Amino acid sequence: MKDLNPLFNPKSIAVVGATEARLKWGSFILSNILDGGYRGRVYPVSSSSQTVYGLRAYASLAEIPERVDLVFIATPASTIMPILQECVGKDVRNVVVISSGFSETGAEGAALEAQMAEFAREHSINIAGPNTMGIANVGIGLFATGGHPRPAPGGISIIAQSGNVGNQIMLWSELEGFGIGKFVGSGNEAVLKVEDYLEYLDNDPETSVILIYMEGVDDGRRFLDVARNGTLRKPVIALKAGRTEGGSRAAASHTGALAGSFSLFEGVMRQSGIMMALNPTELLELSAAFDSFPLPRGNRVGIVTLGGGWGVIAADECEENGLAIPPLPDDIKKRFDQKLPPFWSRANPVDLVGQPDVFLFSEAIELMASCDAFDAIIVLGLIGSARYGIRPVQAAHRLGYVPDEEMEMFNKGAATVETAILDTILMTMSKYDKPIYPVTLAAFPGDEIIHKREGNRYKVIVYKTPEMAVFCLSKQYQYSVYLRNRGGAAVT
Amino acid sequence: MKDLNPLFNPKSIAVVGATEARLKWGSFILSNILDGGYRGRVYPVSSSSQTVYGLRAYASLAEIPERVDLVFIATPASTIMPILQECVGKDVRNVVVISSGFSETGAEGAALEAQMAEFAREHSINIAGPNTMGIANVGIGLFATGGHPRPAPGGISIIAQSGNVGNQIMLWSELEGFGIGKFVGSGNEAVLKVEDYLEYLDNDPETSVILIYMEGVDDGRRFLDVARNGTLRKPVIALKAGRTEGGSRAAASHTGALAGSFSLFEGVMRQSGIMMALNPTELLELSAAFDSFPLPRGNRVGIVTLGGGWGVIAADECEENGLAIPPLPDDIKKRFDQKLPPFWSRANPVDLVGQPDVFLFSEAIELMASCDAFDAIIVLGLIGSARYGIRPVQAAHRLGYVPDEEMEMFNKGAATVETAILDTILMTMSKYDKPIYPVTLAAFPGDEIIHKREGNRYKVIVYKTPEMAVFCLSKQYQYSVYLRNRGGAAVT
Repeated sequence: MKDLNPLFNPKSIAVVGATEARLKWGSFILSNILDGGYRGRVYPVSSSSQTVYGLRAYASLAEIPERVDLVFIATPASTIMPILQECVGKDVRNVVVISSGFSETGAEGAALEAQMAEFAREHSINIAGPNTMGIANVGIGLFATGGHPRPAPGGISIIAQSGNVGNQIMLWSELEGFGIGKFVGSGNEAVLKVEDYLEYLDNDPETSVILIYMEGVDDGRRFLDVARNGTLRKPVIALKAGRTEGGSRAAASHTGALAGSFSLFEGVMRQSGIMMALNPTELLELSAAFDSFPLPRGNRVGIVTLGGGWGVIAADECEENGLAIPPLPDDIKKRFDQKLPPFWSRANPVDLVGQPDVFLFSEAIELMASCDAFDAIIVLGLIGSARYGIRPVQAAHRLGYVPDEEMEMFNKGAATVETAILDTILMTMSKYDKPIYPVTLAAFPGDEIIHKREGNRYKVIVYKTPEMAVFCLSKQYQYSVYLRNRGGAAVT
Repeated sequence: MKDLNPLFNPKSIAVVGATEARLKWGSFILSNILDGGYRGRVYPVSSSSQTVYGLRAYASLAEIPERVDLVFIATPASTIMPILQECVGKDVRNVVVISSGFSETGAEGAALEAQMAEFAREHSINIAGPNTMGIANVGIGLFATGGHPRPAPGGISIIAQSGNVGNQIMLWSELEGFGIGKFVGSGNEAVLKVEDYLEYLDNDPETSVILIYMEGVDDGRRFLDVARNGTLRKPVIALKAGRTEGGSRAAASHTGALAGSFSLFEGVMRQSGIMMALNPTELLELSAAFDSFPLPRGNRVGIVTLGGGWGVIAADECEENGLAIPPLPDDIKKRFDQKLPPFWSRANPVDLVGQPDVFLFSEAIELMASCDAFDAIIVLGLIGSARYGIRPVQAAHRLGYVPDEEMEMFNKGAATVETAILDTILMTMSKYDKPIYPVTLAAFPGDEIIHKREGNRYKVIVYKTPEMAVFCLSKQYQYSVYLRNRGGAAVT
């Protein structure tokens, strides 16, 4: 196994091609590192400037007075070999080649790339790229990518065979509040391959879930071996692009990846226990779900809903995704009989028939989660209901029939109720070690998507739609079956 | 055909059971009507109050001095028959029975509901409900639902067999900016059935798309006849809930709907040309797409992307959804040769390799849309790229290397570019009468989701994901094929 630790946890970094010029990669990468909060030493290398972004610049790697753990190269492809030679001189073992102009551009570039790879192997240098968006280790504030996404730190680590897709997934994570661990755009994979990163992240204690965007692998056999081992330890989610003829052609012209047969690839996924996503949204949402909720022990789902129709929709989604909606046990029915109007559903889904009662909400969640008949709970429409439910009061206020102070109290009360429901879900989930997936009535602007509390190992994701909640839950169930069949246990 | 016009366009309304009491439906409905901007006359009817929300209240319908077009009833079920009797006395022909306590509660309620329906038929009264969330006609500011969603006016009309689902779809529309026409929660459908509303909305010139949430129909034959006729005039999108055993059980306990066999229902959908959505998101997104974009004349898609990986993903999605990714014609290749770096993809998808150039964006969109080889264009990542692309400049600004005034200029420039791209898409779409679907790089808070300009009959929806854009486009294509096969022409 290759030691990629200095690549993601360098104590010192040099950026070759550092510049303050606006549209240059040497500026993107350096400004990102400096702006992102990285605390190690940073050395710009520039043939033309004395200083870059306030740091003393060096004319070459050789002139840097200290040891350099990691070198970024953002100069033209033609300069690569002499710079690598300098790396050897400085005993640099980890390099990220940002520069493009290699195999993706034709035969000449491919020859240069082969020469570079050969040199790297001879001198035991880890090279990420070339033609990569860069890397990141969010936990230490190291953002060394061309784009400047700023996700929060967390357990999801990303391997992307496309920089722009990886970059967008990082940006989406930032906007959704999903926590990211490490990121690598693998670029042309001249030296380090997707399976090297996979092996490293699998052994990385800070990574709880591995997310992969892939277009193709060179060594399917090795990928399968690494993945089969890896999925025993933590969930691995992959999006394979180039599934169709049109997609394969696009992939070939994009990274030169030989996409291969998708059915072959599906077989590899199945054998290796990697979970497949069909689009970037599924890829990220699944990763976040595994990073947040406990695994269900079985497929029996209890549903609590504020309105009947929503329960029907979720029940359909569950059964269409391999989850079961067992009947409501008699003792639970009796308990709800004491709390709900006489015409309540008396069945699973439990329809709270619009009762705007936060105590009832909490009791219903606790009652369902405590019940051995269910392995997971889906809670529909409770989140959001307080803020939406006070709209008639707001209307009466506008009409002059509710005093300002009283309205203020209602508004505050609604916000408090929303947080109370989220806390109830989080605490009940921990208490019974059973996933509780909430779906919001509606995603209001600025709404919390991830709810967490210091000291709680789980997090609550508030889903915008029942179908995404059910999809994620069904994959969590599949993974728990996979682990049981292989006798493993996940770290989450 | 029943004349439902007074139901949706009443000149005067009475609310029986009007009250200022917080948690009563008589308060929800009346405050909603008063707060929503309805300009007709409104008469509260209350047995206990002299005034309600500042309006003089009447002890009975009979006492109202003027003609009443539409009556809402929000008093207990047991009061329904005498109130209907009063309606006859006032020659009221349109009633919305909000009250629950009918067939959904058991045999006694079912008997009362049958009695009510019989009475309505005898006296030619249109009754919506009972047990309904209410109705709305957004265009005239008539919001007469229990919940208080406030979507913008528009062409999407909604029939919902579940009040809470309909209500949520209205609220989602408000938050997304999708324009709604008329809304009806059909409740228990004692008198007016889903097909009555469908027939009315099909003939309603203000409705461009009909959205249906349904759990079951009483008269499948009549539904099929009405729908088959309706889909020739405008697109009809339906979500059928109760597709699975668990869902059917939930539907039965919810509205008492006999869900029937889903495969039977699928056959009816296919015969009638109704497009099926599998969840509420698809239902709303499809409706919005039909309300916004021109129909494609064929299934050949040209893709313009800012990054290669995203193009691969979209190409896969297209081919998996029955759309084709034809090769790029030579003349288009030559035109792009003059604009892009030598290593550009020279294929469809056209990869703009991250060039941050708004003129190039516009030229690329125009070039692709003008090309006869394509029936529709998907544009990936251009929207959002300017605001995201200036982040390195913002980092340099924070590091002290970009003056405040220059930064301000950059920020403004980015916003201008985003609007310019949206305008280009809208204008090019109109010019070639060809749909252009943009997918944003990332949905930043507060982003415009619907872009429209006075006088342009089309609108641009900015998609958050390539898969939703492709899904909607593929259904638009299917509908255009359906219309051609039946010799019809859509109003959109």
